[in-house]
Amino acid sequence: MRPITIEKFDLLLRFLQENQVDVLMISDFENSKNINLQYLSGHPTDAFLLVTSDGESILIPWDISLAGKCAEVDEIVDFSNFKYNFYLTIKEVIKKRWKKSSITVGVHELIPYGYIRMMINLIPELKFFKEPIQITKILQELRATKSEFEMKQLTKAAQIGTKTIKDIRKFCENASDETENDLSFLVRKKMAEYGADDVAFETLVANSSRSHEIHQYPPASNQRFALSGLALIDFGANYQGYHSDITVPISFGELSKEQEKILDIVLDSYEVAIEMIDIGVLTWKVHDRVEQILKKAGYSMPYSLGHGLGLTVHDSPRIGRKPTDEYSLKHWKEETFQEGMVFTIEPGIIKQGVGGTRLENDIMIRNGKIEVITKAEYIQY
Amino acid sequence: MRPITIEKFDLLLRFLQENQVDVLMISDFENSKNINLQYLSGHPTDAFLLVTSDGESILIPWDISLAGKCAEVDEIVDFSNFKYNFYLTIKEVIKKRWKKSSITVGVHELIPYGYIRMMINLIPELKFFKEPIQITKILQELRATKSEFEMKQLTKAAQIGTKTIKDIRKFCENASDETENDLSFLVRKKMAEYGADDVAFETLVANSSRSHEIHQYPPASNQRFALSGLALIDFGANYQGYHSDITVPISFGELSKEQEKILDIVLDSYEVAIEMIDIGVLTWKVHDRVEQILKKAGYSMPYSLGHGLGLTVHDSPRIGRKPTDEYSLKHWKEETFQEGMVFTIEPGIIKQGVGGTRLENDIMIRNGKIEVITKAEYIQY
Repeated sequence: MRPITIEKFDLLLRFLQENQVDVLMISDFENSKNINLQYLSGHPTDAFLLVTSDGESILIPWDISLAGKCAEVDEIVDFSNFKYNFYLTIKEVIKKRWKKSSITVGVHELIPYGYIRMMINLIPELKFFKEPIQITKILQELRATKSEFEMKQLTKAAQIGTKTIKDIRKFCENASDETENDLSFLVRKKMAEYGADDVAFETLVANSSRSHEIHQYPPASNQRFALSGLALIDFGANYQGYHSDITVPISFGELSKEQEKILDIVLDSYEVAIEMIDIGVLTWKVHDRVEQILKKAGYSMPYSLGHGLGLTVHDSPRIGRKPTDEYSLKHWKEETFQEGMVFTIEPGIIKQGVGGTRLENDIMIRNGKIEVITKAEYIQY
Repeated sequence: MRPITIEKFDLLLRFLQENQVDVLMISDFENSKNINLQYLSGHPTDAFLLVTSDGESILIPWDISLAGKCAEVDEIVDFSNFKYNFYLTIKEVIKKRWKKSSITVGVHELIPYGYIRMMINLIPELKFFKEPIQITKILQELRATKSEFEMKQLTKAAQIGTKTIKDIRKFCENASDETENDLSFLVRKKMAEYGADDVAFETLVANSSRSHEIHQYPPASNQRFALSGLALIDFGANYQGYHSDITVPISFGELSKEQEKILDIVLDSYEVAIEMIDIGVLTWKVHDRVEQILKKAGYSMPYSLGHGLGLTVHDSPRIGRKPTDEYSLKHWKEETFQEGMVFTIEPGIIKQGVGGTRLENDIMIRNGKIEVITKAEYIQY
């Protein structure tokens, strides 16, 4: 089943028609993922998808039997009939469909430059729509609000995550020599028990010696977790392809003045952000407000305040700063909070020598209400 | 520490100089991975890397503290000084280094087309080396043979995988109602106990009802594993960033004539392939030989016979068919087995209604000897 609704698919077609794009081409492979393949076709991975401006979908998958099971398209083309070569297959599909190769193809920004070079060489008449950024933007816009079905899946992913918080509490209460890896394993195991298909991403477990890193590398280690100071765990569930994302700030033992201070600022700015969110409010303004609070206190936030949740963990909308260059600004459309959006709010402060802390919950806007659908809060031991 | 050796780094510089490329640019981000960033700089992820033709390396990372810990480069540039904008940062770096922007940049094929468009707009004088495929090829060639250090890491990853086979055997011997997911968890847990940092990839566990799929989707399920017929498990260890990859063919109960037949062909063609491998032998010829054996028996192999192992699970060399289009052929260089190569050999047959089977081991060419460094074999219950 393809996740995109008919209404949204029609908006996409209108975009293609208005911009004289004959066909939209999406590719998704191991080294160059693009979730829009799944969003538009239902096929999970390893394929080219062509969507014509009059609404026909043609899939060229690596695994034809998987496509038979998952894809909701008009045609599935077997590339083994074209020497196992995706480009020769695309060439034939175009020739057959349009009787000429001088059509305009719209590509997503994430398509590897090598694919473009390959097509320019093998199908020299092909024209490329000159603003792939607009293709990216329209797909981001469509995916930023979720269908009823998607909101159900995301609610379930959030519930699995929330349920796991009590296991994290229990682990911390009884923690002595257990490692970050032990906690990471526990979270994976419990989420599977609660119905998750997978973790949403490799769980980040940071004791007080590593919590100042933006993204922990490695995600978890064999160091003891319950060291005195600021710790955190950032995790989420993948439920049937939909994701939750939660960060629980934790502390062990007595904290220093500065540790107390950054905790207070983070927890306060979280409340400020949640309070600000409403339908019609500009997303970048909420990021900006939190950034100003942090700045005033002498700190900075190197990442964005939040991000959408959906078929990817980092979905649209993006709740971050305004673009900072002319090209991006030219193509930028101010984004507001809308019915159907599901996203994280996750203010944080990190400082080497002091530690890091972050509170992250998932928010859903449904029936006009702003609902916090996960239940992370600061835990002190 | 950067994995590339000084000798290989010099070969890369010579390539840049001979092709009048002023600077090589590699990018690696969440949605567009490129392991060459780590190979050339030691920095694991989320950054732009510039390597000038006279050998200077400049890293622009998202996480500056991680770079301080991991990167082996001449300069680390903080993009927060340039409005958190990677492209504006690159623009300034180029301006400062070359006093002009009309330099030639070599990019890897995997760089997203959107990055190219962005740079064309923000730094219009920039020239792009017109054959990114050649950049991909030279890096593949360098990475196809491993250093002493890399061979040690890969040996360790292989040992962890091999050790886990006895746990898989024990699981199968005692299997009654246990699921594919149970086996997947066991393998993850055991490999961590044996020193793995992670699984090399999500373990594929297929009972006889799913073994005919090329790549199982989902990788494992809540179905019972020990169903009568052909099953398999495809797994590997990630040891400090280096990977092993093993497939154990398994059967439960009595097999049909055709199941016996495809098992025999797969096991025989595996032996044929191993026998053929020698320093100087063309890699594609080994694939071709196996493909011919399968074809003669009425089967086909939709994937390649094997692939290199290294910082990625699918590394170079690629042991597959010859390119099938003129553009790829034009840039193709016949590849032979060489000292220092580490790779899989994994013939397989899949057929809906019958099942699938595959035997996969890892091979290392060291001191002139062809050594099978993992110990998978067919297991019958």
